Amino acid sequence: MTTQIGILVIGNEILDGIVLDTNSQWLINQLKALNFQVSEKMTVRDEIQVISKALRRMLLAGANLIFTTGGLGPTHDDKTLAGVAMAFELPVELNDKALTIVTRQYTEMHQRGVIETGEITEPRRKMAILPKGARPLDNRVGGAPGVVLDVEGAQIICLPGVPGELMWIFDNQLLALLKGMIEGVFAEEVIYLPLRDESTLAPIIDEVMQDVPGVYIKSMVKPYGESGIRLWVSSSGQSQTEVEERVHRVANLLVRRCEEQLPQG
Amino acid sequence: MTTQIGILVIGNEILDGIVLDTNSQWLINQLKALNFQVSEKMTVRDEIQVISKALRRMLLAGANLIFTTGGLGPTHDDKTLAGVAMAFELPVELNDKALTIVTRQYTEMHQRGVIETGEITEPRRKMAILPKGARPLDNRVGGAPGVVLDVEGAQIICLPGVPGELMWIFDNQLLALLKGMIEGVFAEEVIYLPLRDESTLAPIIDEVMQDVPGVYIKSMVKPYGESGIRLWVSSSGQSQTEVEERVHRVANLLVRRCEEQLPQG
Repeated sequence: MTTQIGILVIGNEILDGIVLDTNSQWLINQLKALNFQVSEKMTVRDEIQVISKALRRMLLAGANLIFTTGGLGPTHDDKTLAGVAMAFELPVELNDKALTIVTRQYTEMHQRGVIETGEITEPRRKMAILPKGARPLDNRVGGAPGVVLDVEGAQIICLPGVPGELMWIFDNQLLALLKGMIEGVFAEEVIYLPLRDESTLAPIIDEVMQDVPGVYIKSMVKPYGESGIRLWVSSSGQSQTEVEERVHRVANLLVRRCEEQLPQG
Repeated sequence: MTTQIGILVIGNEILDGIVLDTNSQWLINQLKALNFQVSEKMTVRDEIQVISKALRRMLLAGANLIFTTGGLGPTHDDKTLAGVAMAFELPVELNDKALTIVTRQYTEMHQRGVIETGEITEPRRKMAILPKGARPLDNRVGGAPGVVLDVEGAQIICLPGVPGELMWIFDNQLLALLKGMIEGVFAEEVIYLPLRDESTLAPIIDEVMQDVPGVYIKSMVKPYGESGIRLWVSSSGQSQTEVEERVHRVANLLVRRCEEQLPQG
């Protein structure tokens, strides 16, 4: 079955113009590197019924892999999981694994002195209440676990709206799952470069992408707050050897050109 | 009848991660200033049937004012008007007023030396072919007229995807129309709190929202990369004084309760 992907962006802050949604573009580019195309995106308000209907509408339009972003936090306006539960007529229940994640995160934040108490208050406990049958995705950046639910022949993946948390969960908890869904073969190499300025890298990336077609290069500055730049070089096709060779060639080319042309810092 | 607004963003460049959609945020903020709230946003690919279906889905969800952005240009992948025509089973026809706009724009661009010829070629003429019953909106920035269509009790407003053209048409051709549609008045205050943990704030927000009905409170952590939390307090109604007073009272209440109950950090 072909994967048909929808992204459901949830949050009044987007539809009220307060926040510019950049999460979905980031997601789209990561998915593109895995050879997936996104069919449509919807953006809706923080209302349980509205979220539920949006999910039903996306399924009806043929989506079988839906990413939601936002609405997993502790406050009253975080309603994504209640919306997912309503869409599939599932009860919600406290998920032990999710509670372990939430507890660990707040304990650690308390130990680091970021928050006053590590106690699992009602708002924090709320983040571990998932639709029945869903499983949590670890989150080591913030407090809200991601969520995966397999239901009605579709997969629903709920990610937090805070960009760093969404990115961490995607890179560390979802890549393996998504790689298993790729049609054809796929290869990727990650390169770290001790550079400060992404803009000096842009023409080198453009050059290399022109020299070796069929390769996707994604760059990110300080992806998780670290200094430097991280590059993801990926490609897909029919032959594993060919794809791996192509990715490796481009990775080497990038490192060499950067060493030749850029000051290290 | 209440105005229920949907925004339909049309363009593969958005769903392929090449372009970040900033048009819809701009539109949302302009509409907000006029006391309109946007209910939902959809982003779809450049396919006639997909555009048509998205419009039908938005109408079904209750939208009676739909803005589309993108897909009005001269190239083969500009399919918005064909999608609108299909959604409402309308024939398309050359619109004389639209052709006058297109002709004037290309003549002027030619005179300014921006383009080689001002001739109305087939691709340029295409921009003046509108769904039957639609009327063009003047565009003095680029070549593609905007389009307004009143149909099935709804109003469809098609704007170009080039930000400068979209903005010009909105400000110069739509403001009068939209101001005539405003219901009631609107007020908003933004509060900044030097807190680190959103979860401790949740019960205070709930309490205040219960104490003063008719007010919406939205919280966000580190909204502009700054530390702390930002709160948006808004309300709408019939009397400007009453609405402003209500928002101001809640803003003060929130600040006071946070100062009383939460450690500052």
